[in-house]
Amino acid sequence: MTAIQLDGLAAAKDQTAKTRVAIAGATGYSGAELVRLLSRHAHAEIVGAYSSESFSIDALVETKPDVAFLATPNEVSADVAPQLLDLGVKVIDLSGAFRLGEPSHYPSWYGFEHPRPQLLAEAVYGLTELCNGELSKARLVANPGCYPTSVLLALRPLTYHIDRTQPVIIDAKSGVSGAGKKADVAYSFTELFGNFKAYGIGKHKHEPEIRQGLHLGERTALVFVPHLLPTDRGIYSTMHVAFMQPVSNEDLAEIYADAYGNAPLVRVLPAGQMPELKSVVNTPFAEIGFQVLQGGKRAVIVSVIDNLLKGAASQAIQNFNRMCGYPETEGLA
Amino acid sequence: MTAIQLDGLAAAKDQTAKTRVAIAGATGYSGAELVRLLSRHAHAEIVGAYSSESFSIDALVETKPDVAFLATPNEVSADVAPQLLDLGVKVIDLSGAFRLGEPSHYPSWYGFEHPRPQLLAEAVYGLTELCNGELSKARLVANPGCYPTSVLLALRPLTYHIDRTQPVIIDAKSGVSGAGKKADVAYSFTELFGNFKAYGIGKHKHEPEIRQGLHLGERTALVFVPHLLPTDRGIYSTMHVAFMQPVSNEDLAEIYADAYGNAPLVRVLPAGQMPELKSVVNTPFAEIGFQVLQGGKRAVIVSVIDNLLKGAASQAIQNFNRMCGYPETEGLA
Amino acid sequence: MTAIQLDGLAAAKDQTAKTRVAIAGATGYSGAELVRLLSRHAHAEIVGAYSSESFSIDALVETKPDVAFLATPNEVSADVAPQLLDLGVKVIDLSGAFRLGEPSHYPSWYGFEHPRPQLLAEAVYGLTELCNGELSKARLVANPGCYPTSVLLALRPLTYHIDRTQPVIIDAKSGVSGAGKKADVAYSFTELFGNFKAYGIGKHKHEPEIRQGLHLGERTALVFVPHLLPTDRGIYSTMHVAFMQPVSNEDLAEIYADAYGNAPLVRVLPAGQMPELKSVVNTPFAEIGFQVLQGGKRAVIVSVIDNLLKGAASQAIQNFNRMCGYPETEGLA
Amino acid sequence: MTAIQLDGLAAAKDQTAKTRVAIAGATGYSGAELVRLLSRHAHAEIVGAYSSESFSIDALVETKPDVAFLATPNEVSADVAPQLLDLGVKVIDLSGAFRLGEPSHYPSWYGFEHPRPQLLAEAVYGLTELCNGELSKARLVANPGCYPTSVLLALRPLTYHIDRTQPVIIDAKSGVSGAGKKADVAYSFTELFGNFKAYGIGKHKHEPEIRQGLHLGERTALVFVPHLLPTDRGIYSTMHVAFMQPVSNEDLAEIYADAYGNAPLVRVLPAGQMPELKSVVNTPFAEIGFQVLQGGKRAVIVSVIDNLLKGAASQAIQNFNRMCGYPETEGLA
Repeated sequence: MTAIQLDGLAAAKDQTAKTRVAIAGATGYSGAELVRLLSRHAHAEIVGAYSSESFSIDALVETKPDVAFLATPNEVSADVAPQLLDLGVKVIDLSGAFRLGEPSHYPSWYGFEHPRPQLLAEAVYGLTELCNGELSKARLVANPGCYPTSVLLALRPLTYHIDRTQPVIIDAKSGVSGAGKKADVAYSFTELFGNFKAYGIGKHKHEPEIRQGLHLGERTALVFVPHLLPTDRGIYSTMHVAFMQPVSNEDLAEIYADAYGNAPLVRVLPAGQMPELKSVVNTPFAEIGFQVLQGGKRAVIVSVIDNLLKGAASQAIQNFNRMCGYPETEGLA
Repeated sequence: MTAIQLDGLAAAKDQTAKTRVAIAGATGYSGAELVRLLSRHAHAEIVGAYSSESFSIDALVETKPDVAFLATPNEVSADVAPQLLDLGVKVIDLSGAFRLGEPSHYPSWYGFEHPRPQLLAEAVYGLTELCNGELSKARLVANPGCYPTSVLLALRPLTYHIDRTQPVIIDAKSGVSGAGKKADVAYSFTELFGNFKAYGIGKHKHEPEIRQGLHLGERTALVFVPHLLPTDRGIYSTMHVAFMQPVSNEDLAEIYADAYGNAPLVRVLPAGQMPELKSVVNTPFAEIGFQVLQGGKRAVIVSVIDNLLKGAASQAIQNFNRMCGYPETEGLA
Repeated sequence: MTAIQLDGLAAAKDQTAKTRVAIAGATGYSGAELVRLLSRHAHAEIVGAYSSESFSIDALVETKPDVAFLATPNEVSADVAPQLLDLGVKVIDLSGAFRLGEPSHYPSWYGFEHPRPQLLAEAVYGLTELCNGELSKARLVANPGCYPTSVLLALRPLTYHIDRTQPVIIDAKSGVSGAGKKADVAYSFTELFGNFKAYGIGKHKHEPEIRQGLHLGERTALVFVPHLLPTDRGIYSTMHVAFMQPVSNEDLAEIYADAYGNAPLVRVLPAGQMPELKSVVNTPFAEIGFQVLQGGKRAVIVSVIDNLLKGAASQAIQNFNRMCGYPETEGLA
Repeated sequence: MTAIQLDGLAAAKDQTAKTRVAIAGATGYSGAELVRLLSRHAHAEIVGAYSSESFSIDALVETKPDVAFLATPNEVSADVAPQLLDLGVKVIDLSGAFRLGEPSHYPSWYGFEHPRPQLLAEAVYGLTELCNGELSKARLVANPGCYPTSVLLALRPLTYHIDRTQPVIIDAKSGVSGAGKKADVAYSFTELFGNFKAYGIGKHKHEPEIRQGLHLGERTALVFVPHLLPTDRGIYSTMHVAFMQPVSNEDLAEIYADAYGNAPLVRVLPAGQMPELKSVVNTPFAEIGFQVLQGGKRAVIVSVIDNLLKGAASQAIQNFNRMCGYPETEGLA
């Protein structure tokens, strides 16, 4: 073993060699998961954790973080991230502030003018499994939304097969924690216990993100119907697509094997077997099921994740790991 | 008080003036609801109630019922109903034994050869609101399945508008009581609590019933994806259809008003407002919501019912009321 | 039939002969149940219904109600009820404002000085089954709290048997609707799903009400531990008492039969059989189970109710019925 | 890299250096947790895992395990454990087969005559935190029941303070997984959703185990009321005890600090603060809350655990770790 090798080993155990991380928005549901995961991460040291309310850039910067995780509201992230970048702090943002490449979508879908639209081009959209080398060089990662994560993991590998003259239909269901930690009668236990409902059809912020992630042009209809599921955690997306050429279950199995054969946190089920939500709740995994219909002209695809983990915090850790050169599942397994 | 008046009072209490009803399968979930509803029905007298196991035709017939409600397994109903009809007892069957007009569907979808296929043509498919006078003359009513009830109430009024070259996509979710009263680990509390899953895609017995109810020919694709919802009661069907000509929300509102303006147990919501499951749980109501998309080329339609009531027992009572000339909501309001 | 009899019959059907009722606090959970129950009550006409926020005495009085139901906060009821009484409107108050006979308990347990302490002596504590003729003459009924209703129905019949040198221990569990309709993270779905916890030990407003209802003196310890149950409705009280003389299960059965043999809305189970919550949820019934232990020196008693019905709205209707001379279960069965 | 270094690396990876473990009953809820925990344990190698049905002693022994975990039914464990011990395999038994020291309790509480009563004296009752050196020498560990674990952790430290002339009252609530993986309508989702009920009063197998663990003699009454909680996991025990001499909250805090100051998996809350179930669900922790009442003459004590972890599998791992000399939390943190 050479000196360099020894040094390498020593460094790996040296506390000072850990990456210094700060978390803003640490008391929300995703933020709390970030704290939990990073506190047991072998190569991360939490130097600061702040609630969205108590948080100030000055206090955060004083802790000299290498990387800041922002689990803050969209407008806060849009405002704070550029300042941190200017001060040399890398940013992994869990809000929607940097997910959309098209600046004009911010006023129409998010309700505010983007303060630094030029950063939208630089931000890396961190759907980890579908990123290549870009995360290792990124200064700013836009961590994907929970619904888009579940949808894009399932549909992106099929991009060149989907018939874009037919609508892409997404019937998605989310556990209530997806709405965040809210004092709101509409999200109270009594209102939602034993209940179920569709909401926000045609208005959900995740719709343009899905459309962008699938590179859908004007001529392709996207029908995205989110529903509120009476459980605390998990997203279950049932998707309906048509193909340009008939495909077999074997074809789909092969496409997914190509896409995720080496992905440690995506499980693809055998054709015809549909995932259940509990398989992924409280885990960093995504699970995908599929079944062709009508002689392969169409398929039903189902994708499940834990909205607070693969749909937020654990995917942020995956991105952090890739950004820093750590094993992708460090802190997650 | 005169003798006539006394007679009048006596008549009102006279048991012989009530319709005599017997219930087979009275200990299952739907059967128990039947017992509960019929026991407070002003014009029905329960003369016999039997579990599916203890039940014999002889015992039932001895009670001299006018009408028998069968909440028995498919094959039991297929066997028993013809015998009861032959003995002059009218039958309202809550199983699938007489729902499909096409005899060959029984071996392929239900797994048994129908013992009396000629009765399939006679049986009245009892989706109450879409029946006309036929219920008043019926000897045998096939009470619709729970999923088909929710779907057909929503889509049948749109029959002449739906573009049949496009798939009809139904993403349906049912509370667990839909599976019946079962000793099965798969339906145990621990397995299903906080869980959600699609099941039976392309294999569910209700698929041909929906296809029949919508008069879908070979060229129209029907994608029916049932899911198990972690609650005890209720069905929530989210449906995706395309139209031959663009329609407006106002058009749909008018179509539904025409269909259900006089239906006491169907509520249609204003355009763009989606129902929630709890609005109908423990009630005999169906509730329908709709929203056009893409300039009226498509719409999302949502329909909710209580699977054990409008999807089973209370619809059976509606059919009973129509059959006997009682007010449609007698025993239900 | 005499004219008087005819008049009587006519009056019974005369809309103008109905009792005019107004409801303040109609949008809370108990208030909404009041509206639902009174709207189908044969002898009540709702002349006004107001949310706690929009409600004014003037508006209410203008509707000329005979009886006002107050489902308003404690201090609002304490302020409003006396004014209504002064204007000749009878009051059934569902808050705690008139439940305690001892004025000094208001500052210590409720946090406010009672504005009309002299009314506390006049108010009839409306635990319906344990009232005698006093409801028919009452101007002001204090409808009992949900926990006290469940506890007192079970323990009041045992008053002369309980050993008061031993503690009375009450381990009570309530569905979340017991906390009211609240925008509060602590009562959000995500926080409470799959959760369970004790709260407010030694501080719950219902503790002095239980102590008063059992006539417990200083020397008797009362341990009241409320818990929050992860369901929407229902109270389950498990109670532990010691007896002065050993009793048998038969003794207890007889005591309860004496107390409730003629009570249409209280069901006493056979000895050793414990109720389940669902038997009473969405019903106006209370159900009581009991089992002696240690040779009859002690017993476990369980009592269940729906907190919004027997624990609030349906008991208020029982009291209204007794107040007005209607059958006790009118509007409830 | 030198040979020595290679040896060192090799040793770290050398499977033979790990403790070889086999699991019988690996498909039940506790067994599955055992497999999950042991599969990531640094010093354990799973050499065999069997369902209760497929399991044979011969097959298990062929895998040459050092330690066998039995998550099998009581009578199976009673039969199998002695044979494994005779073959030199250490046993950690998660059933009740070796928990009670008194052989005569088996026929009366468990319904079978114990086949090897002499082993009852040898078996170490593995309530980890309350064991001293005995686990390191044990051949046979009786892993405690879930209810007793929650109760004894809370009450054992108070043993010398509890007034044994007064009853010890335990109102315990368990998530449904406590009943095991069962095909039984009584444990089906539909029956238990939104439900709650007491069961097995005076008959529960855990009652003599609690009595034994607290060294309660004949003169002390134990009232143990288990309830079924409508959630999947977790036990919440609310306990009521009287003291010989009044104690203060500070006294209790000190007693618990003495008992658990060094216990890594028991958290004691500040006086007056009660735990919530979710704090421990899916974790190996126990959490204890307490509050004195009536001037210190009595207290309410609450103890919560995950029934499948601290109440079964993770406590078995703690015992395994102590047995083998590994750090107590290895595989659990």
